[in-house]
Amino acid sequence: MSDPFFHPVSGFDLPRFAGVPTFMRLPYVPHGHERYSDVQIGLIGVPWDSGTTNRPGPRHGPRQLRDASTMIRAQHPTSGMRPYETVNCADLGDVGPNPADILDSMTRITAFYDQVLAAGITPLTAGGDHLTSLPVLRSLAKVHGAMGMIHFDSHTDLFHSYFGGTMYTHGTPFRRAVEEGLLDPKRVVQIGLRGTMYDTEDRDFAAANGIRLILIEEFHDRGVADVMAEARDIAGDGSTYISYDIDFVDPTYAPGTGTPEVGGPNSYQALQVVRELEGVNIIGADMVEVSPPFDPSGGTAFLGMSIMFELLCVMAAQANS
Amino acid sequence: MSDPFFHPVSGFDLPRFAGVPTFMRLPYVPHGHERYSDVQIGLIGVPWDSGTTNRPGPRHGPRQLRDASTMIRAQHPTSGMRPYETVNCADLGDVGPNPADILDSMTRITAFYDQVLAAGITPLTAGGDHLTSLPVLRSLAKVHGAMGMIHFDSHTDLFHSYFGGTMYTHGTPFRRAVEEGLLDPKRVVQIGLRGTMYDTEDRDFAAANGIRLILIEEFHDRGVADVMAEARDIAGDGSTYISYDIDFVDPTYAPGTGTPEVGGPNSYQALQVVRELEGVNIIGADMVEVSPPFDPSGGTAFLGMSIMFELLCVMAAQANS
Amino acid sequence: MSDPFFHPVSGFDLPRFAGVPTFMRLPYVPHGHERYSDVQIGLIGVPWDSGTTNRPGPRHGPRQLRDASTMIRAQHPTSGMRPYETVNCADLGDVGPNPADILDSMTRITAFYDQVLAAGITPLTAGGDHLTSLPVLRSLAKVHGAMGMIHFDSHTDLFHSYFGGTMYTHGTPFRRAVEEGLLDPKRVVQIGLRGTMYDTEDRDFAAANGIRLILIEEFHDRGVADVMAEARDIAGDGSTYISYDIDFVDPTYAPGTGTPEVGGPNSYQALQVVRELEGVNIIGADMVEVSPPFDPSGGTAFLGMSIMFELLCVMAAQANS
Amino acid sequence: MSDPFFHPVSGFDLPRFAGVPTFMRLPYVPHGHERYSDVQIGLIGVPWDSGTTNRPGPRHGPRQLRDASTMIRAQHPTSGMRPYETVNCADLGDVGPNPADILDSMTRITAFYDQVLAAGITPLTAGGDHLTSLPVLRSLAKVHGAMGMIHFDSHTDLFHSYFGGTMYTHGTPFRRAVEEGLLDPKRVVQIGLRGTMYDTEDRDFAAANGIRLILIEEFHDRGVADVMAEARDIAGDGSTYISYDIDFVDPTYAPGTGTPEVGGPNSYQALQVVRELEGVNIIGADMVEVSPPFDPSGGTAFLGMSIMFELLCVMAAQANS
Amino acid sequence: MSDPFFHPVSGFDLPRFAGVPTFMRLPYVPHGHERYSDVQIGLIGVPWDSGTTNRPGPRHGPRQLRDASTMIRAQHPTSGMRPYETVNCADLGDVGPNPADILDSMTRITAFYDQVLAAGITPLTAGGDHLTSLPVLRSLAKVHGAMGMIHFDSHTDLFHSYFGGTMYTHGTPFRRAVEEGLLDPKRVVQIGLRGTMYDTEDRDFAAANGIRLILIEEFHDRGVADVMAEARDIAGDGSTYISYDIDFVDPTYAPGTGTPEVGGPNSYQALQVVRELEGVNIIGADMVEVSPPFDPSGGTAFLGMSIMFELLCVMAAQANS
Amino acid sequence: MSDPFFHPVSGFDLPRFAGVPTFMRLPYVPHGHERYSDVQIGLIGVPWDSGTTNRPGPRHGPRQLRDASTMIRAQHPTSGMRPYETVNCADLGDVGPNPADILDSMTRITAFYDQVLAAGITPLTAGGDHLTSLPVLRSLAKVHGAMGMIHFDSHTDLFHSYFGGTMYTHGTPFRRAVEEGLLDPKRVVQIGLRGTMYDTEDRDFAAANGIRLILIEEFHDRGVADVMAEARDIAGDGSTYISYDIDFVDPTYAPGTGTPEVGGPNSYQALQVVRELEGVNIIGADMVEVSPPFDPSGGTAFLGMSIMFELLCVMAAQANS
Repeated sequence: MSDPFFHPVSGFDLPRFAGVPTFMRLPYVPHGHERYSDVQIGLIGVPWDSGTTNRPGPRHGPRQLRDASTMIRAQHPTSGMRPYETVNCADLGDVGPNPADILDSMTRITAFYDQVLAAGITPLTAGGDHLTSLPVLRSLAKVHGAMGMIHFDSHTDLFHSYFGGTMYTHGTPFRRAVEEGLLDPKRVVQIGLRGTMYDTEDRDFAAANGIRLILIEEFHDRGVADVMAEARDIAGDGSTYISYDIDFVDPTYAPGTGTPEVGGPNSYQALQVVRELEGVNIIGADMVEVSPPFDPSGGTAFLGMSIMFELLCVMAAQANS
Repeated sequence: MSDPFFHPVSGFDLPRFAGVPTFMRLPYVPHGHERYSDVQIGLIGVPWDSGTTNRPGPRHGPRQLRDASTMIRAQHPTSGMRPYETVNCADLGDVGPNPADILDSMTRITAFYDQVLAAGITPLTAGGDHLTSLPVLRSLAKVHGAMGMIHFDSHTDLFHSYFGGTMYTHGTPFRRAVEEGLLDPKRVVQIGLRGTMYDTEDRDFAAANGIRLILIEEFHDRGVADVMAEARDIAGDGSTYISYDIDFVDPTYAPGTGTPEVGGPNSYQALQVVRELEGVNIIGADMVEVSPPFDPSGGTAFLGMSIMFELLCVMAAQANS
Repeated sequence: MSDPFFHPVSGFDLPRFAGVPTFMRLPYVPHGHERYSDVQIGLIGVPWDSGTTNRPGPRHGPRQLRDASTMIRAQHPTSGMRPYETVNCADLGDVGPNPADILDSMTRITAFYDQVLAAGITPLTAGGDHLTSLPVLRSLAKVHGAMGMIHFDSHTDLFHSYFGGTMYTHGTPFRRAVEEGLLDPKRVVQIGLRGTMYDTEDRDFAAANGIRLILIEEFHDRGVADVMAEARDIAGDGSTYISYDIDFVDPTYAPGTGTPEVGGPNSYQALQVVRELEGVNIIGADMVEVSPPFDPSGGTAFLGMSIMFELLCVMAAQANS
Repeated sequence: MSDPFFHPVSGFDLPRFAGVPTFMRLPYVPHGHERYSDVQIGLIGVPWDSGTTNRPGPRHGPRQLRDASTMIRAQHPTSGMRPYETVNCADLGDVGPNPADILDSMTRITAFYDQVLAAGITPLTAGGDHLTSLPVLRSLAKVHGAMGMIHFDSHTDLFHSYFGGTMYTHGTPFRRAVEEGLLDPKRVVQIGLRGTMYDTEDRDFAAANGIRLILIEEFHDRGVADVMAEARDIAGDGSTYISYDIDFVDPTYAPGTGTPEVGGPNSYQALQVVRELEGVNIIGADMVEVSPPFDPSGGTAFLGMSIMFELLCVMAAQANS
Repeated sequence: MSDPFFHPVSGFDLPRFAGVPTFMRLPYVPHGHERYSDVQIGLIGVPWDSGTTNRPGPRHGPRQLRDASTMIRAQHPTSGMRPYETVNCADLGDVGPNPADILDSMTRITAFYDQVLAAGITPLTAGGDHLTSLPVLRSLAKVHGAMGMIHFDSHTDLFHSYFGGTMYTHGTPFRRAVEEGLLDPKRVVQIGLRGTMYDTEDRDFAAANGIRLILIEEFHDRGVADVMAEARDIAGDGSTYISYDIDFVDPTYAPGTGTPEVGGPNSYQALQVVRELEGVNIIGADMVEVSPPFDPSGGTAFLGMSIMFELLCVMAAQANS
Repeated sequence: MSDPFFHPVSGFDLPRFAGVPTFMRLPYVPHGHERYSDVQIGLIGVPWDSGTTNRPGPRHGPRQLRDASTMIRAQHPTSGMRPYETVNCADLGDVGPNPADILDSMTRITAFYDQVLAAGITPLTAGGDHLTSLPVLRSLAKVHGAMGMIHFDSHTDLFHSYFGGTMYTHGTPFRRAVEEGLLDPKRVVQIGLRGTMYDTEDRDFAAANGIRLILIEEFHDRGVADVMAEARDIAGDGSTYISYDIDFVDPTYAPGTGTPEVGGPNSYQALQVVRELEGVNIIGADMVEVSPPFDPSGGTAFLGMSIMFELLCVMAAQANS
């Protein structure tokens, strides 16, 4: 059940600052590698931020996230889950984007994920800005049809367009995903919304399509457990995607991001919401908008990887159940 | 009712990183401008820190705050208030201080605000260290008489003097303001007090004059809503000044300040206290002690501007009521 | 009762940025100084991090902590305690370690503390990494025998060894201390544990020896007062050491440390747990793992010194009772 | 001859940290302003970096450059030139790019410059990445035909394409400009070239078209005066564009840029090369690739503006001759 | 001849990161100390920046300089001078300024130096902004009369006044010193001048009074040895003060300063100019304008202390001759 | 001759910010890999700094150097050398040190290099502090006997011991190497020496053994070409090791190091000295003392890798000759 090939290097054997940094110090198993088809959960980098409308940087996210991930150990502190011994995990490498061509990049991303899914691998993505989710969902929808989504974010990313008609930005991916039938809006919930608004065009779209919006005030009033129980209900038993924008977390905890909004959850809540995903039928997940130029210290990336480890444990538990 | 001249530039039209940065991307309407007398709420910078007894820097505050304010959009996320369409707002520019002469600077500041008030504009100030409030209050008192004050801070700023008799520092403005009859101490409340103390000379003065002090322990025990209800009671119906020292907030959330004290409110509470000012008769407000050299990232300034937007929404609602 | 020689310099007399920085601006009284034997509580630096298995830096801790301590004033904000007027406090200087020889350094540290204890001084230590506690406990045990310990940390530091048998690292000090009979494991409680784990070898040791582990989830669920009441019960009336690893606090509040774990207490809780030590029979305390290279801003050190001031107040109250 | 409207604010009157920051503290005169047609040299921001193939950031350049420009005073230290009293200078504002659409952005930039040139204004541009130069040259060529160019850079920016055929990146603008007939390659010189190379495709193009390449070794061997004499000869009497990529300067002096190459000129040489442009028939100039996220201190921007002041003095001298 | 009391702690005995940081790890000998009168060269901190017209910070200079000085060892690398064994050197502590009162501060500084001179100690000062030199010169002139001065700086600091008549700023000290007869202008040379200018009011004053100005262009053209030979000639045999503003050095080498000017000397030249002071009759020296908030890394302070060590070696050689 | 397996990924194909970062984007070929024995030049990381006597950090060097190396392209700008197509180069991974045991670590390092040399691979090392060179030389001497060495550094690293007899620190490796017969002192030259000195114990040893010391003053006076001609003479035809301490370069160019000394070579000279190694019989080389915590920007690492590319080109030319 537990294949040593897929075990990460331990900090007891090789200090955590040593070695070529792969995600979680897992083996690097790109497409074409002989063990590719044995991978069950694949960690993938999408170093891309062409959809960013304000402060770019997430293209540097996967590298800093890999570096930070060398601080993550093998076992979950409360559940005892040891994901790498439960399912075969690997670093599948990065999608190669075209920084100067958005449409070309989206095509490349979807093609990469088509390969991943063809091998039966469940993808756990490290972005990239939030537009990353769209080409990933396009691939997943080929296998899973219209999906539910539990979405942690301070923004809805449901806008129609920017700058007089530009359709593909990091503020529009889920508008496109609903329009393209990739998401079932009735099974979509967005949690943590806050910050000043341009207008209500995005919220009006959500209301018209049945997307549930949970503002930060409701989140703080009800607490993690209650909110997440509702989120699980909304997602139901169907295939569900988890999209985690690091700007869900208060920017003091996660300054390395391009569109911060103050007044968000703290780092403890940031982990707890993921633990509450147990039982959800997760067919893929992402951590996006980590922007190294705005946090050279790497603290944001370390929080991002701590959250990804929580995601991995939930996904491993499900894969094993 | 809504004059397009006073509408800020939208990030949907011009990216938020573009353009000369005025407060909130509002029009720059200095004294002498033909629309000056049409302004209802004026945002003013006071780049001055000569009253600082320890770590200087707030003289650079207004510029960094203007830069951060380009991230603020047009509508409040819960109340729906669109302040720029409700009242005429503008950037009135900076007061020009004399960095090497405290008394001369105070004279210049009061003169600037006399012009503002003569035009019927309600001032919303971006400091500057906390001594800034004194010359502003001197001007306001000419119009409003002795005012109430709701004061968010980790310090009382009620000391008699420093360094053997120096009367004008950022630790003494409200002592002077009470002595000069600018504030009615019975209608003054200070919220968030904490940190190690020299002695009790400031608290003794408060007790002797009826100023209500709410320490951080009481704040955390009672919660925002209960504390603010009392604050509104203390302020009553009379003219009330709001003074918000960024060091009210925990220094992890607001490191860019000169006299931090650990253990303060988080950024969510930092916003909520302002929302609870609804109904207060606000005749002016300030955000002071943002010190860019101690937070080059601009995160403190972004929090400062997020709070100023909350202040603006409360002031706009009142102006409109 | 209050000896002016031992009073720190006031910021009202000499600005806080001026002067050679000793701990708390106290007099520098190294061994051999004529007033050495009059000191009751001695602040000591141990600039040493040879036990660090991942990111070094705490060797620079004492200097940055001294610098930050010039921001601390004379009186506690709620209890009113003025420790420097209650007991004679002094900066005893730094232990001189041998950065290239762990065993030699431990010998030097124990020898330094033997002198301190011989003079009847209670030590309050600024580390250094957590291995610092071991040679300090060796000295204390000569006087006090097997001690209880209240230990704030995100890690147990109870591992057997690292890297194939290395016994002295910052992950092993309390394993050694129990083995050597310096600590009475039944009177030891560790609070704030969290973060991903290598395995359960450390927790198994704790369970087998009766060390009480309080995970962060239990801490957040029960609250400070309840957890600390239990901690006081565990420590009982006997001699008790307080060991405070700055990584107990959430890394957003204390980024300057080598082995951060997200999801910890905030800075308010960080202070409150110390206030709840009142009544404990404290025979020594330390603040360890402050690592300046990972927080050049000094914010972590300022929090560290704010906590040390709380420790000092509790220790002064006890010394005076 | 000297119109006070166009004089910048003096730091003797208003401290340099005060006021809304325009370029050089000049008046803000956007298109449509009543004095627009009186401007002779216009400073323009192009906050755009969509052509960046590696590390983005120059979109934030104009704002940081404006901030840094408040440190620049009125007179040249050796020539005595007072440019603002010699020609009418103004800040014309920023071109509004579309961050998610390269072609749309280039169209917008060219349109902006068409207006500038129609008013008879000589443009001095603050980028933006180096692709900025292409749409500017398209506008200038409508008036001036095929131009000469003196180009300071560590790269040729003469590549054919990137990423399998992408034609518009910051590595290709001058290839396009030559192809489109905007530049006369025989009158183009590139100075400061260095750094590791992909291949010689760019240099081959230069050789085939008669573009003169001066590598850094030749620059250091011959010295500024000799190299610049040749540069003036190459440019001749015809209309000449000056393009100054901040990465011409050694990255230690200018770390805030996306594609640094070590071993470049120091800051003294960085200024001297501009002084040697006297006599060149300059019809426009730019300073590009200043990337604030890679130098939050602003030192790179201050160097960039110091160079722009030198450019302005040379342009003012020419306009006045 | 060599008194062990005055020997600094060696890094071979106590690691350089350990211990309370005094200047050069020398003994701390404040006024009143029993060895005070045995000191020959006294290092003094003046933590003061009230004369700063733009970016404050030098008040934090002495502390960061002390910290950096722990990196300096005992012997000069080329001359072999071991200053601490040649003359008795000590850290005399800081002057306590009044941050909110310029005139009071100047009085305090002069009084401090009067004590120093009364004890026959030659002062080597660590500022503080450049206004610091004025009260120091006032004290020195009481003993030495009108002095010569070799002044390294990018600015003349010879302006009449700022902000409409403010006479005491860091841009005016030497104007005052000449007016007050503290300096003999015929024996004053200023080296390294550069940067944009307000006007020529300062240079006109220099010309009218016979102060020799050496611009950076002349410095680079002639080289260190030739320029310094002239400087020695100008100073002659009389009592001469050395004033070294860290902004003499290019800001890339010394970013931690408030009024940088690009294009200056490198760090090698920064040291060489001091070595060329051999033979000058130095009666005091200062290193000013090191501003820690603008270089938290401490690199500027380390350069500052490296220069101060060169000054100390020249002063020790002279004292010994 | 050119094996595509060993070609690095091009930035034209995959953007330079993408992908798992190996040295120079070369294939990762650890011991045991099927292509291991085909490697000709192996890049190796030694993440170790236990020999550091002052400021630790080089243990993090290899990771930051790998990250920076993704900016290096395929061809040398002046020689045209394309090293990856000339010899088979690969990233051999990191030696796993024991951070808490110096002797154990040295044993591990020598063992690693024994394997490398057994496969006929020439090692190019990225440290690590300078003690790294000693265990590497121990391995090389088994093959090559007593070697010559061209050593770039601001320190001799020839001390006998530290802290009362500690023999293995980063200040002693070459003393040990001479004593152990690994180096032939008559064929050793050290270039760039400067900075304050403890005493002359190291220089005395050099003089007694015939090691040639070139101080920075001689370096600046004679210039790169002349100094390096002598260095080549000293090394002669025999096996020669190149050791490059990044603190050879001025700390402004390379702040990320633990023991900086001001007044060193600039980045252009830093490259030129390596180009002048052509013809030397290089049997191994290292780049040491890059310390990421002291330069989070990565500029030092980028300079370090630019120098390593120069080394690689010289080594490839020699291998090919």
